[in-house]
Amino acid sequence: MRFLIINPNTTEQMTDEIGEQARRYARADVEIDEVSPSWGPRSIEGHYEEYIAAAATIQVVKERAGDYDGVIIACYGDPGLYAAREISPVPVVGIAEASMLMACTIAHKFSIVTILPRVQPMLEDLVRHNRMEDRCVSIRTTVLSVLDIERDPSLAEREITVEAKLAVEEDHAEAILLGCAGMGPLDKNIEPHVGVPVLDGVACAVKMLEGLVDYGITTSRVAAFKEPEPKEFLPYRERAAT
Amino acid sequence: MRFLIINPNTTEQMTDEIGEQARRYARADVEIDEVSPSWGPRSIEGHYEEYIAAAATIQVVKERAGDYDGVIIACYGDPGLYAAREISPVPVVGIAEASMLMACTIAHKFSIVTILPRVQPMLEDLVRHNRMEDRCVSIRTTVLSVLDIERDPSLAEREITVEAKLAVEEDHAEAILLGCAGMGPLDKNIEPHVGVPVLDGVACAVKMLEGLVDYGITTSRVAAFKEPEPKEFLPYRERAAT
Amino acid sequence: MRFLIINPNTTEQMTDEIGEQARRYARADVEIDEVSPSWGPRSIEGHYEEYIAAAATIQVVKERAGDYDGVIIACYGDPGLYAAREISPVPVVGIAEASMLMACTIAHKFSIVTILPRVQPMLEDLVRHNRMEDRCVSIRTTVLSVLDIERDPSLAEREITVEAKLAVEEDHAEAILLGCAGMGPLDKNIEPHVGVPVLDGVACAVKMLEGLVDYGITTSRVAAFKEPEPKEFLPYRERAAT
Amino acid sequence: MRFLIINPNTTEQMTDEIGEQARRYARADVEIDEVSPSWGPRSIEGHYEEYIAAAATIQVVKERAGDYDGVIIACYGDPGLYAAREISPVPVVGIAEASMLMACTIAHKFSIVTILPRVQPMLEDLVRHNRMEDRCVSIRTTVLSVLDIERDPSLAEREITVEAKLAVEEDHAEAILLGCAGMGPLDKNIEPHVGVPVLDGVACAVKMLEGLVDYGITTSRVAAFKEPEPKEFLPYRERAAT
Amino acid sequence: MRFLIINPNTTEQMTDEIGEQARRYARADVEIDEVSPSWGPRSIEGHYEEYIAAAATIQVVKERAGDYDGVIIACYGDPGLYAAREISPVPVVGIAEASMLMACTIAHKFSIVTILPRVQPMLEDLVRHNRMEDRCVSIRTTVLSVLDIERDPSLAEREITVEAKLAVEEDHAEAILLGCAGMGPLDKNIEPHVGVPVLDGVACAVKMLEGLVDYGITTSRVAAFKEPEPKEFLPYRERAAT
Amino acid sequence: MRFLIINPNTTEQMTDEIGEQARRYARADVEIDEVSPSWGPRSIEGHYEEYIAAAATIQVVKERAGDYDGVIIACYGDPGLYAAREISPVPVVGIAEASMLMACTIAHKFSIVTILPRVQPMLEDLVRHNRMEDRCVSIRTTVLSVLDIERDPSLAEREITVEAKLAVEEDHAEAILLGCAGMGPLDKNIEPHVGVPVLDGVACAVKMLEGLVDYGITTSRVAAFKEPEPKEFLPYRERAAT
Repeated sequence: MRFLIINPNTTEQMTDEIGEQARRYARADVEIDEVSPSWGPRSIEGHYEEYIAAAATIQVVKERAGDYDGVIIACYGDPGLYAAREISPVPVVGIAEASMLMACTIAHKFSIVTILPRVQPMLEDLVRHNRMEDRCVSIRTTVLSVLDIERDPSLAEREITVEAKLAVEEDHAEAILLGCAGMGPLDKNIEPHVGVPVLDGVACAVKMLEGLVDYGITTSRVAAFKEPEPKEFLPYRERAAT
Repeated sequence: MRFLIINPNTTEQMTDEIGEQARRYARADVEIDEVSPSWGPRSIEGHYEEYIAAAATIQVVKERAGDYDGVIIACYGDPGLYAAREISPVPVVGIAEASMLMACTIAHKFSIVTILPRVQPMLEDLVRHNRMEDRCVSIRTTVLSVLDIERDPSLAEREITVEAKLAVEEDHAEAILLGCAGMGPLDKNIEPHVGVPVLDGVACAVKMLEGLVDYGITTSRVAAFKEPEPKEFLPYRERAAT
Repeated sequence: MRFLIINPNTTEQMTDEIGEQARRYARADVEIDEVSPSWGPRSIEGHYEEYIAAAATIQVVKERAGDYDGVIIACYGDPGLYAAREISPVPVVGIAEASMLMACTIAHKFSIVTILPRVQPMLEDLVRHNRMEDRCVSIRTTVLSVLDIERDPSLAEREITVEAKLAVEEDHAEAILLGCAGMGPLDKNIEPHVGVPVLDGVACAVKMLEGLVDYGITTSRVAAFKEPEPKEFLPYRERAAT
Repeated sequence: MRFLIINPNTTEQMTDEIGEQARRYARADVEIDEVSPSWGPRSIEGHYEEYIAAAATIQVVKERAGDYDGVIIACYGDPGLYAAREISPVPVVGIAEASMLMACTIAHKFSIVTILPRVQPMLEDLVRHNRMEDRCVSIRTTVLSVLDIERDPSLAEREITVEAKLAVEEDHAEAILLGCAGMGPLDKNIEPHVGVPVLDGVACAVKMLEGLVDYGITTSRVAAFKEPEPKEFLPYRERAAT
Repeated sequence: MRFLIINPNTTEQMTDEIGEQARRYARADVEIDEVSPSWGPRSIEGHYEEYIAAAATIQVVKERAGDYDGVIIACYGDPGLYAAREISPVPVVGIAEASMLMACTIAHKFSIVTILPRVQPMLEDLVRHNRMEDRCVSIRTTVLSVLDIERDPSLAEREITVEAKLAVEEDHAEAILLGCAGMGPLDKNIEPHVGVPVLDGVACAVKMLEGLVDYGITTSRVAAFKEPEPKEFLPYRERAAT
Repeated sequence: MRFLIINPNTTEQMTDEIGEQARRYARADVEIDEVSPSWGPRSIEGHYEEYIAAAATIQVVKERAGDYDGVIIACYGDPGLYAAREISPVPVVGIAEASMLMACTIAHKFSIVTILPRVQPMLEDLVRHNRMEDRCVSIRTTVLSVLDIERDPSLAEREITVEAKLAVEEDHAEAILLGCAGMGPLDKNIEPHVGVPVLDGVACAVKMLEGLVDYGITTSRVAAFKEPEPKEFLPYRERAAT
């Protein structure tokens, strides 16, 4: 089977690493193409960037999902996920969603360790949107921007480890979810220091999607994810209307 | 004071009507400019269109909010609201949000009467996002598309009245919120048939925003709505990356 | 338009200050009369006093609401609010309710800073009654009794500022609600020290009520706030029955 | 031991019947005095009457609780309950609260069958205040006013039975709580027709209170129910202040 | 009346003490027999032991409940409670459930002080299962195993007192529930040190059950606790199937 | 990899079918052994049977889990799941849990269609235990006992289809979860009639478990699922203690 994994930001190095991480855990018979949109922010650390990136991500889904058996949106805000489900002929999984769902099978409570403090409210809303507020005991932020993780993975590893250990000790987390796609490759490095399972959403999404495709299950199209109504769109313009 | 009211879809007739409705209830000293984005869908009836329209709406906010004392996003999904708050120097109010908040002062429970059944899950999530699930007893849909309301207001009035009356009788709603910006001008026509207050989000948003500006209160910038980090954006391209 | 603002306790100095605060933010065309009941407690700091004050407040509403376009109950427990809505021909707004609703348009999460620790459970129930438990991150109490605020406003300002800053730093509050009508005049003094919007319920209630009256919306009378059934009341006696 | 049971309305016939019902289920060693306030509404069917009755009830508690081992507030809105706890030296139990708590030991889900439709929102808030919203599957109202029950018990029995049966069949209720103190004497008449336990709050409150007194447990006085602060009250006046 | 109180573990000394504690608070006309299953774990400190003990407890209920007027399951996890209700002809009360219900009449918020940290998640689920999550402000664990309490009651008293005091001071608990049947005899020793009511589930269950029996109320059999369907059971074997 | 799938009841025909269903969706490199306990009920349709079956299931897990890479508990009540996690060296997945988690990736809301009405409260508690109450719009029961499904699959198919269609039309379900392990083989027969995805928990559990094993993630052992304390168990006896 073939999956398309979309990095919603436009930092190609990160796209490559996400592709690598996805292939690391994919089955031998799964082919994975990684891509980022041709426009949009270099990284996503707030609502503004997330909305722009969501529109760019949806464009990728619209044009390319039809060539694959499944699509993964690889940013820990699941930008544009519900829109993608409306327009994709194949199942679409978000990495935040996937990590939370998979965590529920191995832990009673989990924490998310993520980037800058400013995303804490966004992630809190995301957890709530996924009806996981009673499973997620804390969202712990760090000093790391998204691109810091790329630039200095060993710093990232240390910072994440510190917060992950506090999540276990103080918040009674039983699993740690890595709250940024770029953190994925660090999962197995951090785990031994923390003493509980450390889950990367990219890996989780790959496994969830393999399961959906194997079982022959795809997005329900009768209500929340119904195909869009046919209608006219005015094409993009560089300037807002006045 | 001066407000900018944005119709997130690109149907100008609807933009004009929203402007009219806003002026109908605005104070004499409030000047209101209505605008729609220069690109995006003719109407918003699903997640896909909402995400595109949100990006277009945010562009308008970014370029124009600085000339006003407040901004209103006039689509009953509040598209891009939280992003707009990050980038606007003045307060931003969504019409769905405003109608729900104002309803809480005159009713114990309310219902939303809206367009096609396909938006029911979106509105349910919106209600939940606003932590209003215990106030909203039902979301009732109709056969009306967004543009049907423009095309045939008397049909719209009849259809909405039917559902609004059922909301009162069967769901014990004590107020009706009109779940589409285009329905606004019908508020006072429908109210006498229904026997409970009928609230239009445009009117509510104008009044909430007047109140905020009078009181000298604006968006808190310390957490959820912090100004975006400085960063590069790749410019829009017509084709997705391959 | 004309508003009646009721201070539910019987400390006239506080009634005067509440009137002043209301007029500070009211529009030029709004006339405001302030009043306190002719009987009842000097201040409200528990359930017992609140119930007595509620009965006294309702009496004021019953006799005087008909002469106004709107009524405000100005104690941060909203005593007797739902009863007042049953018997008032015009809309009635409580200051706690109004501050929480208005806060939702400028902050994702808020804290309430209030008087003595003993009111913490009452306010927690009030927040829950208003279905705001997911918006209110903390209720922080001080050493201040209600009348301490009148007696020593600069002490009050210092004490409230300390807790408000802790609410922002430790509880991640994005706005501070002043949890006592007497704290209102301090709003703009405290705000610069705290770095987030500081909301006084009196100001918020005035703006909400102006909005309701402008929009021509009043209390729904079909269910929760239906006019009382006609029936006999035995007149007050000084002694309980034996 | 000696209990005081207070009927918060001023209909003496109803007070007598409540006393009778309490004695029917009280242990032989429990002496029960029934009383109603010397002032206030003949019956309680809305927020307005409830607030007046609460103030009158609290007066009774203040003057008389000290002569008893426990107090029961016998109106299915538990008027003034939390205030009573602040001022009573002995435990105070409300009949709504007691019936919901006792129901939890014999049923997974229950319904409340009560008087006129207008009290439905009040009871819904009461259920929520008691954190029982996930236990209470429905609140079913009837055509009965409070005094109808006194006037025509056999009509009341029929009407309650109809709704109780519907609660079992349609709402999957496993127990029926009688939502008015006056309905108490009908409990054992209705039960055989309904096929599930029928609980009267008066009986439940008597048993809960016997248990509390036997176990030597009384109201916690450290937070929600702390003794009121010493302070001046202005005495009742017939006219509101102007 | 006659009650059977079951200690679900197989430590007889503890069974004896539970019987003693039950008799301490039972009315003079209540006869109490204590029993533990003939098989199963010496103590219950996790899900595994709880499930084994539940099966053993149910066996006792099945064989012996018919000889009594009520049954108490005396382990603070209420093991097998819902199964016991299906098969017992008389009401069955769990000590955790009973303590939480009774606490609601004398405190707005409570904490549970219990044994080893490992039971914290179990108790959290139990609180949630009983829909008490908004009443229970904390579950505080100690260094005590179940059998430590038997072995060294004065150590247990000290350890519980420390955590109970912290629950009052830091978590604002207004009552303390003793989260292990073996802690019961310490209730009145600990209470004076803590300053809030200390409730033992065994005592609470006895009083609740006396109330149910007096009132003539028993388990509803129409839904959750319907009598089991007739069917074949294969008898116990020492080895699992292969 | 090798999985053990346990049918918690003792009907071998059903065990065989569950094994078949598991193998139908398992990857080629996954070997699956099916087993049922050597003792316990022929079917599970209530709490009593579930507790007995849970004890028997745990015994199987204890003796055999060590020989496998993962364990599945294949009864739609997930009997003994949390106990199994404490004692199994490899991950354990329940079919109810797995179906709910997987459904969240392809539907916004789902319904469970299950056996006799008597299990409705059990399933409601199970949904709540899994924090899925906001995802599950209905639990629909049928006339089918567990063994009816084995005896007459075509009757089962018709009955389930009827309720599944009602769930889609009336409850707005976007996916149907088959609420009994025995219903699994009917999934793809029912799906075309219903128009939304139909999920069998056995298939879902197999896919979830493959994902967990591939990703190298297993049960967290620090809190809820910590290994049991070492302690003595008295061996099973046929008679309860007296």
